[in-house]
Amino acid sequence: MVKIIGKENSLLNQYISELRDVNIQKDSLRFRKNLERVGEIFAYEISKKLDFEEKEIITSLGTAHVKTLKEFPVLAVILRAGLPFHQGVLNFFDKSENAFISAYRKYYKDGNFKIHIKYVSKPEIENRPLIIIDPMLASGMTMGHTYRELVNDQKPKHTHMISVLASMEGVNYVKRNFSGSEVTLWVGAIDDELTAQAYIVPGLGDAGDLAFGSKI
Amino acid sequence: MVKIIGKENSLLNQYISELRDVNIQKDSLRFRKNLERVGEIFAYEISKKLDFEEKEIITSLGTAHVKTLKEFPVLAVILRAGLPFHQGVLNFFDKSENAFISAYRKYYKDGNFKIHIKYVSKPEIENRPLIIIDPMLASGMTMGHTYRELVNDQKPKHTHMISVLASMEGVNYVKRNFSGSEVTLWVGAIDDELTAQAYIVPGLGDAGDLAFGSKI
Amino acid sequence: MVKIIGKENSLLNQYISELRDVNIQKDSLRFRKNLERVGEIFAYEISKKLDFEEKEIITSLGTAHVKTLKEFPVLAVILRAGLPFHQGVLNFFDKSENAFISAYRKYYKDGNFKIHIKYVSKPEIENRPLIIIDPMLASGMTMGHTYRELVNDQKPKHTHMISVLASMEGVNYVKRNFSGSEVTLWVGAIDDELTAQAYIVPGLGDAGDLAFGSKI
Amino acid sequence: MVKIIGKENSLLNQYISELRDVNIQKDSLRFRKNLERVGEIFAYEISKKLDFEEKEIITSLGTAHVKTLKEFPVLAVILRAGLPFHQGVLNFFDKSENAFISAYRKYYKDGNFKIHIKYVSKPEIENRPLIIIDPMLASGMTMGHTYRELVNDQKPKHTHMISVLASMEGVNYVKRNFSGSEVTLWVGAIDDELTAQAYIVPGLGDAGDLAFGSKI
Repeated sequence: MVKIIGKENSLLNQYISELRDVNIQKDSLRFRKNLERVGEIFAYEISKKLDFEEKEIITSLGTAHVKTLKEFPVLAVILRAGLPFHQGVLNFFDKSENAFISAYRKYYKDGNFKIHIKYVSKPEIENRPLIIIDPMLASGMTMGHTYRELVNDQKPKHTHMISVLASMEGVNYVKRNFSGSEVTLWVGAIDDELTAQAYIVPGLGDAGDLAFGSKI
Repeated sequence: MVKIIGKENSLLNQYISELRDVNIQKDSLRFRKNLERVGEIFAYEISKKLDFEEKEIITSLGTAHVKTLKEFPVLAVILRAGLPFHQGVLNFFDKSENAFISAYRKYYKDGNFKIHIKYVSKPEIENRPLIIIDPMLASGMTMGHTYRELVNDQKPKHTHMISVLASMEGVNYVKRNFSGSEVTLWVGAIDDELTAQAYIVPGLGDAGDLAFGSKI
Repeated sequence: MVKIIGKENSLLNQYISELRDVNIQKDSLRFRKNLERVGEIFAYEISKKLDFEEKEIITSLGTAHVKTLKEFPVLAVILRAGLPFHQGVLNFFDKSENAFISAYRKYYKDGNFKIHIKYVSKPEIENRPLIIIDPMLASGMTMGHTYRELVNDQKPKHTHMISVLASMEGVNYVKRNFSGSEVTLWVGAIDDELTAQAYIVPGLGDAGDLAFGSKI
Repeated sequence: MVKIIGKENSLLNQYISELRDVNIQKDSLRFRKNLERVGEIFAYEISKKLDFEEKEIITSLGTAHVKTLKEFPVLAVILRAGLPFHQGVLNFFDKSENAFISAYRKYYKDGNFKIHIKYVSKPEIENRPLIIIDPMLASGMTMGHTYRELVNDQKPKHTHMISVLASMEGVNYVKRNFSGSEVTLWVGAIDDELTAQAYIVPGLGDAGDLAFGSKI
């Protein structure tokens, strides 16, 4: 199941347009802030699909019947580009437990690459909602490998994969590989092109470099 | 027109339940943070009703056709209780211009009161969307007077009145006094009772005191 | 007593230089963020002068002897320009109670003006540390009147007046009118000139307009 | 060279006491917020030791001679516990480039362990100030290995190692292994004891678990 949050115009599209803009990107504080706000919006939209339960709360003037989250989702962030996006999701799901994963592309002589998982730190995931956070869904393979690494010995209640921008190829990869009953993919917008180097076009460039500086 | 955002369960209801809870309220940092997050959610939901326009943006890899806000709404905050709620709305509408209004209830011997406006600072409002921000909609009279004060010589494009909690009486006051084509009222939840002292029950108490300490 | 925090180079001077810069000011989100960060730095520096007491705290592994603030200062903010600066101070003194004051200049035909206090909301101040927050100390009269309004029936333990920028004239006004045993003035930098219209030169312009948009 | 920022009472000690407190720790939002604020304070104190240069800035009313940072330090964060602390440092050094490192302890049958570096992402460090960020300095070995990994082919201008809490043993490790001309160690407080499992006592427990939930 694929949800394109940006289909309906909202502040999300304002932030995405700033994230894409080569001139506005120069301000890395605003770039990170925009990723954070996008994360907050995704968290809010996803929360509409989570389970709530009724509780009685004592106010200073009486008793209120309120609805609270039955359980907070586990947040899994793909390093390093995912960190500001994750920060936004965590700002809203402030009681969530968190997983951290680093993945890298190992290139072969023929130009192909394989995804390797290098670092994993994760909490109990069994039967809990899971949100996997990566700002860019290019080929979809990093997201796919991260998912498999996280769930290889545990079964989440439902998994929400989230990306600010996706390529059509990445969306199709997720659709082909994961059933809608297990996985929902949430994206801000879908771009048509994916280059041979796995860059989304027009995209926004390298989210990690823009947030944190280029790597050597 | 009245929109009850909390009708559909989401993180909004989680935050409202924390705002109401006498125990969680003791942490004024979290109380203000919850008002801020509620403000962010209201800003996002309202933004879905605003006008967007298509723009071409240059990314590092191509040209993107994006949708951006045609104009940012003017944000009018009722002091002092509205400040953390306003902070959240401004976090999301970061390019907005802002109005500040203080109103107070002048009580008569018979227990009745009238709303007086004491302090007003406002930008150009003519033909721009306007959001008036007050966390509690009790009798509705403060909101009503603030609106009239703001628009007495200027006509906004459309006005969004926003409150975290409202009494049924306050909601009816707004409906009775303002046409849906000019004003939309957005609330998180509606409580049944309004005391003679104009407190919403079960409500959450005095939002200003809880955010900033009691006045002498 | 006057403390010029910017005398020693630190990030404070970086933020002040951005606050002054006509180009960087165009980004009102960054302008407000810079005022907030400056407020955090002032709060931290002032906290070094406050009273602490030793407490025993239970950690998960033992007992720690720690030093905690004996009492949080009351924060008094002058509207509207003071709000983002106050936000920063409150971010750091998160348990503080807060006062809000609006003052305005009433001009006479001869070009002179008098400060009028229009709106006051204040907590108990007696025998507590007090911080009065105004980003610009121009003539010093607004700060002076606000102080008198706040303390006319209550005696704070000690008052800290804080401004990001001050004119030499404003600094002298405070020195002349308040004794160092009662009041400490903290500023980021002192500019030489004050225009007839009470603008600090080179200054940074109108902090309220830059943070919140121009008033009509 | 070792600097104990908490020696002089300030808000830092307030936050450290909250970080240690088993009851306050239950609120992971406040725990992370406290690490962030501590990071902001460390950034500010370190900035006093960095190089500044004079610039001319055009204000709306004239020309100001200001002091700005000559260069922003590179921020290196040790995963995952360092992230909220790093967030605070980055809030203040918003133009900094960032390195991310994960290290883990590999235990041997005899109970001894060795530090392995698993994930490294780093920018150009040559001749730039470097800040290495780890909330807890236990044995000092993780900090030491991270430093060596970062500088093995590049020489920073000066390195600032920062920890909220340190054991005496960790402090001695750093002093023994690194010269004061190359490295300054900044800590909030020093605790006496280090357990065989390398926990600081009384300490605050596991900063990573408290911020992000326990790992499986």
